[in-house]
Amino acid sequence: MKAKNYISGNRKPVILDTDPGMDDAIALFFLMGRQDILEPVAITTVFGNVSIDKTTHNAQKLLKFLDAEEVPVYRGASSPLIRDRVSGEMIHGESGLGEVDFPEPEKSSDATSTPAAVAMAKEIMARPGEITVITVGPMTNLALALKLYPEIKEQIAEVIVMGGAMGQGNRTASAEYNVFADPHSAQIVFESGLSVAMIGLDVTEQSKPGQKERQLLQKLDHPVATKTLEFMDFFKRQMKTDYDMAFHDPCAIAYAINPDIFTTRSMDVRIELTGTYTLGRTVCSRGQEEVKGVMGDPDSRNVKVGLGVDREKFFEELFTSFRKLADTMN
Amino acid sequence: MKAKNYISGNRKPVILDTDPGMDDAIALFFLMGRQDILEPVAITTVFGNVSIDKTTHNAQKLLKFLDAEEVPVYRGASSPLIRDRVSGEMIHGESGLGEVDFPEPEKSSDATSTPAAVAMAKEIMARPGEITVITVGPMTNLALALKLYPEIKEQIAEVIVMGGAMGQGNRTASAEYNVFADPHSAQIVFESGLSVAMIGLDVTEQSKPGQKERQLLQKLDHPVATKTLEFMDFFKRQMKTDYDMAFHDPCAIAYAINPDIFTTRSMDVRIELTGTYTLGRTVCSRGQEEVKGVMGDPDSRNVKVGLGVDREKFFEELFTSFRKLADTMN
Amino acid sequence: MKAKNYISGNRKPVILDTDPGMDDAIALFFLMGRQDILEPVAITTVFGNVSIDKTTHNAQKLLKFLDAEEVPVYRGASSPLIRDRVSGEMIHGESGLGEVDFPEPEKSSDATSTPAAVAMAKEIMARPGEITVITVGPMTNLALALKLYPEIKEQIAEVIVMGGAMGQGNRTASAEYNVFADPHSAQIVFESGLSVAMIGLDVTEQSKPGQKERQLLQKLDHPVATKTLEFMDFFKRQMKTDYDMAFHDPCAIAYAINPDIFTTRSMDVRIELTGTYTLGRTVCSRGQEEVKGVMGDPDSRNVKVGLGVDREKFFEELFTSFRKLADTMN
Amino acid sequence: MKAKNYISGNRKPVILDTDPGMDDAIALFFLMGRQDILEPVAITTVFGNVSIDKTTHNAQKLLKFLDAEEVPVYRGASSPLIRDRVSGEMIHGESGLGEVDFPEPEKSSDATSTPAAVAMAKEIMARPGEITVITVGPMTNLALALKLYPEIKEQIAEVIVMGGAMGQGNRTASAEYNVFADPHSAQIVFESGLSVAMIGLDVTEQSKPGQKERQLLQKLDHPVATKTLEFMDFFKRQMKTDYDMAFHDPCAIAYAINPDIFTTRSMDVRIELTGTYTLGRTVCSRGQEEVKGVMGDPDSRNVKVGLGVDREKFFEELFTSFRKLADTMN
Ligand SMILES: [Ca+2]
Ligand SMILES: [Ca+2]
Ligand SMILES: [Ca+2]
Ligand SMILES: [Ca+2]
Repeated sequence: MKAKNYISGNRKPVILDTDPGMDDAIALFFLMGRQDILEPVAITTVFGNVSIDKTTHNAQKLLKFLDAEEVPVYRGASSPLIRDRVSGEMIHGESGLGEVDFPEPEKSSDATSTPAAVAMAKEIMARPGEITVITVGPMTNLALALKLYPEIKEQIAEVIVMGGAMGQGNRTASAEYNVFADPHSAQIVFESGLSVAMIGLDVTEQSKPGQKERQLLQKLDHPVATKTLEFMDFFKRQMKTDYDMAFHDPCAIAYAINPDIFTTRSMDVRIELTGTYTLGRTVCSRGQEEVKGVMGDPDSRNVKVGLGVDREKFFEELFTSFRKLADTMN
Repeated sequence: MKAKNYISGNRKPVILDTDPGMDDAIALFFLMGRQDILEPVAITTVFGNVSIDKTTHNAQKLLKFLDAEEVPVYRGASSPLIRDRVSGEMIHGESGLGEVDFPEPEKSSDATSTPAAVAMAKEIMARPGEITVITVGPMTNLALALKLYPEIKEQIAEVIVMGGAMGQGNRTASAEYNVFADPHSAQIVFESGLSVAMIGLDVTEQSKPGQKERQLLQKLDHPVATKTLEFMDFFKRQMKTDYDMAFHDPCAIAYAINPDIFTTRSMDVRIELTGTYTLGRTVCSRGQEEVKGVMGDPDSRNVKVGLGVDREKFFEELFTSFRKLADTMN
Repeated sequence: MKAKNYISGNRKPVILDTDPGMDDAIALFFLMGRQDILEPVAITTVFGNVSIDKTTHNAQKLLKFLDAEEVPVYRGASSPLIRDRVSGEMIHGESGLGEVDFPEPEKSSDATSTPAAVAMAKEIMARPGEITVITVGPMTNLALALKLYPEIKEQIAEVIVMGGAMGQGNRTASAEYNVFADPHSAQIVFESGLSVAMIGLDVTEQSKPGQKERQLLQKLDHPVATKTLEFMDFFKRQMKTDYDMAFHDPCAIAYAINPDIFTTRSMDVRIELTGTYTLGRTVCSRGQEEVKGVMGDPDSRNVKVGLGVDREKFFEELFTSFRKLADTMN
Repeated sequence: MKAKNYISGNRKPVILDTDPGMDDAIALFFLMGRQDILEPVAITTVFGNVSIDKTTHNAQKLLKFLDAEEVPVYRGASSPLIRDRVSGEMIHGESGLGEVDFPEPEKSSDATSTPAAVAMAKEIMARPGEITVITVGPMTNLALALKLYPEIKEQIAEVIVMGGAMGQGNRTASAEYNVFADPHSAQIVFESGLSVAMIGLDVTEQSKPGQKERQLLQKLDHPVATKTLEFMDFFKRQMKTDYDMAFHDPCAIAYAINPDIFTTRSMDVRIELTGTYTLGRTVCSRGQEEVKGVMGDPDSRNVKVGLGVDREKFFEELFTSFRKLADTMN
C-alpha cells in the first residue's frame, strides 16, 4: 500500500461503494457537496438494505437529483459470498429510500455493463496508489475485486469502512448490519493487509442528530436538507421511535474529509465466521491480555478502529457540505 | 425455582463455589465477615486460577486463617467439561494466592470424600428453595450437579455468577476468564431456567480500588485488610501495572448481601460455543432488533445482567464486613 | 487403565448402559444368556430412544421378564450434556419397545436413589481394574462419571461403545444416533485415554438378520426368540421396509463375549462438535496422509474401530445365548 | 440451466479449470486427444497443487508439448476465497509436474491479461447454454465467476467436478484436497443450482492403474504415454508406495466424454464450512432418514454423485485418446 500525500489543492479521488439506503443517500449528498476535497471517481452499488436492482436504481436517482449523472454508477453484487441474503426493508422501506421521492434517471446508465468489482479494479489500476475506497454497505464488491485482481492491494490508498462494532451490534447483539450481511467479504477486506479504517457503531451511534441539528437542517432550507429531514421523519414513523436515525454512512464521508474529528486506535480485528450467536462480529483486540494462539498478536494491528467522534465538528462538516451543494445546485 | 422471601433476621444460606485465587480470597473474607446476613453452608472448589489441588488447599488455608474450619470444603472438578484447561498463574502466582502467606490447615479436611457437585446437590435438596449458589470460578461443579440431579433446578433460590461480559472480555477480547475456562458448563447454568444474576466485567471492572480505598484498607489495620493489601501489591508487581486489581469475585458477594447497589437488566444471554474468536462470549441481547432465529427472543430474558455498581456503597459494604471480621477474629 | 487377564472360569463383570429400545432389549437378552462369561454388575439407563422415565421402566420390565430383578437398575441422565434432546420414537414406538408386551415390574426398584453416573463410579472403584462398561445409548452417564470421579479412568478395564460410524451415519448423513444424541459426552469418553472399542454402523449394519436367521429364531421357540421376532416385525411395519432391523446393540455384547469375531483397527477418532452438517460425526483417521495440525497424529490411535464382523459367528453367539437363556428361564 | 442435446457430429465445448499437477496433465492429454468429441474452449488455471505462477506456467508448457498453443490459457485465482492456502508439493513435487521435463512455451501467452473468472464468464455468455465447465482443482475461479456474473448460471450446460468424497477424504480423514483447498468456493458452486456432477474419491480411487494398465501404456510407445509413465514413477518414488497414483482428474474428462461408464446417484450435497475436524467435507445425504432441519430434504438433490466406474472402460477411453493424440502429434 503506497498512500500518496495529497498536496493542498489536490482532491482525494474516492469510490463510494453503497447500498442506498437512507443514510447512504445522506452520505452521497455529503460527498457530492465537498468536491473541493473529494473527487467522486465512481459509485459502485451492492445488495444490502434492499436488492441490487433497487440500490442501483436508487443511486442513479440520487445522482439525477443532484444533477450529477456524469458520475458513473457500476452495478455490483446481488448476494453475499457465502451466507444467505438479509436485507433492511424494515428500516429503509420497500424502495430503500423511505417514501421519499426522487426523480427518475433519464436513461438507464451503463450500470450493468461492467460489474462493480471489475470497474473498481480498473479505476484503481488507472491511478495507482491514489484511490480511497469508501464502503458503506456489505463489502462484497471490494472482496471480489481483491480476489480477482490481487494486484490492486498495493494500489489502494485507503479503505474507509462504515461497518462493525467493538461494542454491541445492531442487526444482532454481536454484529453490525454491513458486516453481518456478508461477513466473509468483510474478512477478505480486513485481512487483506490494506490500510483499513473501521468507522463502526461505536462511532456512528454518537452521530444521531438531536433537536439542535434538526433545527439547523430546517434553517438550511435546501432540497438536500429537506430530503434529509424527510428521511429522518420516515425513520421515526417506521421504527416507532422518538429518537432520530443515526447518520452511520455519513460518518465514513466525514472521515474521508477530515479524519481528525475521530479518535481511533490500531487494533487486531477479526471477523467471526463460525459462531452460533456471533456471526459477523468484528472482534477487536488491543493485543495484550489475550490467550496466545487465539488472537491479539501485538504485531497484527491491522485496522484503525474509530472509537470517538467530535459530534459538533461532524455536523459542522455535514452542514458545510450541504451549504456548498446548495450553491452548486441552484 | 421457588425463591423464599427472607424474613428479616433470617440469614441467606449460600454455597460459595470458588477457585482461590486472590480475589476469591477477598470474596471469602467478605462473605465470612457478614455471617449476620449470609450463612456459609459450604465451600466448593474448582480448577481455575490454579489446579484443583491448589484451589482446594487454598480454600482450606483461608478458612484456617479465618478460624472457620467448621465450614465444610468439597473438592470439585479438576478440568472443564469439554475444552482444555486454561489457568491463571500469570496473574495469581504459582500458588494462586500471590506470594501471600497463610497458615497450613491442621488436618486434611473431608474435601475429597464427596465430589463438590454431589455435595452441592445434597445441601440444596436438604433445604429446598433456600440456598443461593455463588460461583466465582468456572461453573463446572454447578453444571455437573444440574446434570446429575436435575431436580435441584427447582430448589435453588438463586445463582449469582461472577463471570461474563457484555462488553470486552479479559482473557480474550471476547470472553471473561470464568466463562472462557468452561463455556459448556456456563451454558448449562445459563440455559437451565434458574434465576441467574450475572455479575460480569461490565460491573467488576468498576470495582478497582483507588488511592482512597487503599488508605481505608491501611487504616483498618486488621489481618484481612493486610492480606488484601498484600494481594493488591502482588498483583501490581506481577502484572507490572500502576492500577490496582479489580475486585471481581467480591462483587458477587456484595450482590448476595445487597443487590440494590447494582443496576441490572434482564437479557437473553447465550454462551458462544463454536466461534473461532468468540469462544466463551456471553452474548447479551436486549431482545429487540435481532434477526429472528438467531436469538433475542423477548420471552427469553433468562439472565439478570449487572450493568452498573455504586462503587462507594460496594466498598462501604466490603469494609463493613472487614470490620465485623476484625471483631470476630480477635 | 489396568485391564486384567481373565483366567478361564472367571467371568467378566460388565455394566450395561442402555436406553431400551428394541435392539437394547435384544442386547440385554444376549448378555443375560451368557452369564457363564459375563457378570451383569448393573444396568444403568439413559435418555435416548425414548425418555429416561420410559427407558428406566423398560429396563425394569425386561429384567422382570427375564426373571432377573436382582440385577440393580440405576436411573441416569434425562438429557444430553449440551445439545437439545433428540429421540427415536419414530423407530422404537412410543414406549420404546415397539408394541411388544412385557410384564410390569412388581416394585419400583432402587432406580432413582443413586444417579447412574455415581453408581457406575462406585461399582468401578469397588472392583478396580475389573469392570467393562458397555454403552449402547448416548454416553452421558459415563461422561458424567468421568468428570465427577476422574480416578475411575485408571480402573475401567475397557469401554465397548455401540455408536459412531466411519462411513455414512444413520440419524444424519454424518452421524450415528448414539453419538449424535450427545456428541459432547462421546468426546469426553473418546478423548479420556480409556481403552475404547467403537462398534459402529460400519459393523452393525452388517448384522441385519436375513431369512435364514429369521427361521433359526422361529425354530428356537422360546420367549426371548419370540419377543425378538416381535421386535423385528414391529420395525418392518413401523419403517415400512422389507429388510430387517440391524442388531446394533447386540453387536457390543458380542464384542464383550468374543472380540475375535470382529476385525478392528486402531485409529485416531475425534467427535465433531462444531460442524453445521457434521455434528456428532466420529471422524476416523488412519493417521497418515492428514494435514498436520488437523488430526491424524500417528501417536493418537485412541480408539479400536470395528470394521468388520463375521456374521455367521455373530448370530451363532447370539443364538447360543438365547438357548442358554431358555434353559435358565424354564 | 438449459443443457443442449448434442447432435451426433457436434463437439461438446468445454473449459478445463486446472492446477497442474501430474494428474491434471494426464487429464489434459486425455481431453486433447478427444477433440472429435470435446472442444477445448479455454484452459483456466488456479492455485492448488502448486502456486498460480507454476500451475499457469505448467499449463502453457503442457499445451506447447501437445503443440496446441492456440488454446487460450487464462490465469486465475492465486489463493482460496477465505481459508489459508494449502498446496501439494509433497505429492506433485516442487514444480507440480514431478521431475518430468516439458518444453518451455515460446512466448508468455495472454494468460495474465484477463482473470480466469472473467474469461470463463465471457466464453459462457458467448455460447449460451453450451459450455461444460470441468474443474479439476480448487473451485475458486468458477465461484468468482458465479458471484461476478450471476447470469452465467442459466447458461452453463454442466459442471463436472473432480473433487469431494462421500467416504474417506485424502487430504484429511474428512475431506478431499480440491474441496478442502477452497471449501467456500465449493459451496458456492454446489449450492448454485447448476447441474453438478461430482466425480470424487469414491470413484477416482477406483482408477489406479495396475500392472495391466502399465503394460498397455508402455506398449503405446508415444510421448504422452511416456510422460504419463514418468509421472507414475515419480509418484511412487515421492510417496514411497508400491501402488500407483490414482488418475483423479482424468476421471472428470472420462465423464465428459462418456458419462455412462459411471454410476451416479442424485444426492443432497453440502460443504461443511465450520467443522473442527470436517472442514471441506462433502456431506452427501440420500434425503431419507435424516433429522429434519439439518439436511436431507428430498427436494434438494442438488448433485449427481459418482459412486462407481467401469475401470475397464475408463482405461479403454483413456488409451483411445492417447492413440488419437499419437496420430495427431506425429
Ligand atoms: Ca449503507
Ligand atoms: Ca475466582
Ligand atoms: Ca440403544
Ligand atoms: Ca488437479
